[in-house]
Amino acid sequence: VARFHEQIASDLPQVDLLCRFVERYRGKMLRPSLAVLAASAVRPGAVDVADPVITVGAVIEMIHIATLVHDDVLDDADTRRGGPTINRMHGEEAAVIFGDYLISQSFHLCSGLNDQAIALRVGEVTSTVCAGEMLQLSNRGNADLDEATYFSIIDRKTAALIALACELGARVAGASEADQHRLGSYGRRLGMAFQIQDDLLDITGAEEVVGKPLGKDVEKGKITLPLIHFLRHGPAQERQAMRERIRVEQPLNGSRPALHSRLERAGSIAYARAAAVRLVAEAKAELASFGPSGAKDTLLALADAVIARDH
Amino acid sequence: VARFHEQIASDLPQVDLLCRFVERYRGKMLRPSLAVLAASAVRPGAVDVADPVITVGAVIEMIHIATLVHDDVLDDADTRRGGPTINRMHGEEAAVIFGDYLISQSFHLCSGLNDQAIALRVGEVTSTVCAGEMLQLSNRGNADLDEATYFSIIDRKTAALIALACELGARVAGASEADQHRLGSYGRRLGMAFQIQDDLLDITGAEEVVGKPLGKDVEKGKITLPLIHFLRHGPAQERQAMRERIRVEQPLNGSRPALHSRLERAGSIAYARAAAVRLVAEAKAELASFGPSGAKDTLLALADAVIARDH
Repeated sequence: VARFHEQIASDLPQVDLLCRFVERYRGKMLRPSLAVLAASAVRPGAVDVADPVITVGAVIEMIHIATLVHDDVLDDADTRRGGPTINRMHGEEAAVIFGDYLISQSFHLCSGLNDQAIALRVGEVTSTVCAGEMLQLSNRGNADLDEATYFSIIDRKTAALIALACELGARVAGASEADQHRLGSYGRRLGMAFQIQDDLLDITGAEEVVGKPLGKDVEKGKITLPLIHFLRHGPAQERQAMRERIRVEQPLNGSRPALHSRLERAGSIAYARAAAVRLVAEAKAELASFGPSGAKDTLLALADAVIARDH
Repeated sequence: VARFHEQIASDLPQVDLLCRFVERYRGKMLRPSLAVLAASAVRPGAVDVADPVITVGAVIEMIHIATLVHDDVLDDADTRRGGPTINRMHGEEAAVIFGDYLISQSFHLCSGLNDQAIALRVGEVTSTVCAGEMLQLSNRGNADLDEATYFSIIDRKTAALIALACELGARVAGASEADQHRLGSYGRRLGMAFQIQDDLLDITGAEEVVGKPLGKDVEKGKITLPLIHFLRHGPAQERQAMRERIRVEQPLNGSRPALHSRLERAGSIAYARAAAVRLVAEAKAELASFGPSGAKDTLLALADAVIARDH
């Protein structure tokens, strides 16, 4: 946290204001936690604040927050983690530039590690995240989106950065290439399950628990796994209505509970949940070769928590 | 050019489309040219395509283009270099994400140089550029903006990246710290003169020559050097009208020629031009200690060209 704080601080009061504002975005700190846990799983012993894994975690969290700031601009979102977004409070322009500032600062912090392979991976994966977002954007309102493309989208836009946290956490702890790869695979599957759970919560969650407006995916024509299932296997008439709804991108206006029960009845919720459960099992299986440790136990528990969460 | 092309290419057709689109943004290639010239000024001999200075130029140009893409979103601009902008053609969302993609790819390319100092400087200066943009944004519509703050804005948002091109061009050519610093100072002054000339063209230029809509600074409440002078030294009544105009951010609607002649009469155009001329002289003076070379001659000529240009 301190590393994060220190890196983004600026001598300009205008910039500093936004830095303090964005602190609230930190939320669960999933990615830094995963980096530290991955490091601990390959190298027993406590992690102190001078450990490069803390820097890796801060770099990845800064990139993550930059994507949230820009996502909120794209979605014209009003709230995030129960409070107003930067675009709402300080304007769209400030949010775009501040996101860029965070990305630049994260690369600057990353370069300080003096490990070319890490810098290359961070640059590469950040590009992958952007490519995933572009792929998602170009498929907005596309009711014919197939599962393969959906998985390719969430793999890039969400799982890649979570996987990177695990991979680089392992790397700075001196893990073998094979162990870095295993922990990266764990993170990738966990990340995909995480996104599917997010997509499910958008339909089934409680707004006051999740902390942001829900039902936005359908409103914005964003096709998620339960919707893909529904558009193939739901009752013919409801399917047609759903295609139309996605095409016009109209507000749900209180019809989210009805949408939820339609998807529930068609088995679409269960279908997506099963996919997330399968990914979590695969994620956990990647850890089989690691010796017993508190960190390993926590990674296993975290995988289960990702799909058990209600926010 | 090829390095630029290669780095931003993607396996996703959606991303590739934008990459081809952005090619047109390259324009004058001022920054890569400066990097190559700075390198040549400290180390005689031809620069081949495998030279790291080509990579430095590509990295900086990618960051520059990313800022243009995001600027066009912020300004809701329709045209750039005589053609439509990405936000106009592909939507604001695509433009935000694609800018992020370019920044990430530039850092990835930069990391490949395996020079930690360069990566640190690139991250640092990119943050500085963003901080400059934020400072500018927070002073929109502020008719009391002083010269010191104006210079601080253009130093960060424009001059810093141009200075970096010169500094790093010199660095990869093996220049001494002192020579890197001199060439960086040359670039910084050149960059500030460049921005003042840009600000002047917004008032005095011909749209069909400049290739973008003009008069936008006053419309958007962006206070530039000629305006700062006018707001202090123009006729009292006109000053008051200008303050009001800046406050309401209304379109100029054909009154740009009238604005131009008011500023001309008050000596505000001449004042800003004199500041640019002074900066160019200072830039050229930084090169005094370098031995004669074709590159040095070109750098000297470029400095003059920056303020002589009409586009």
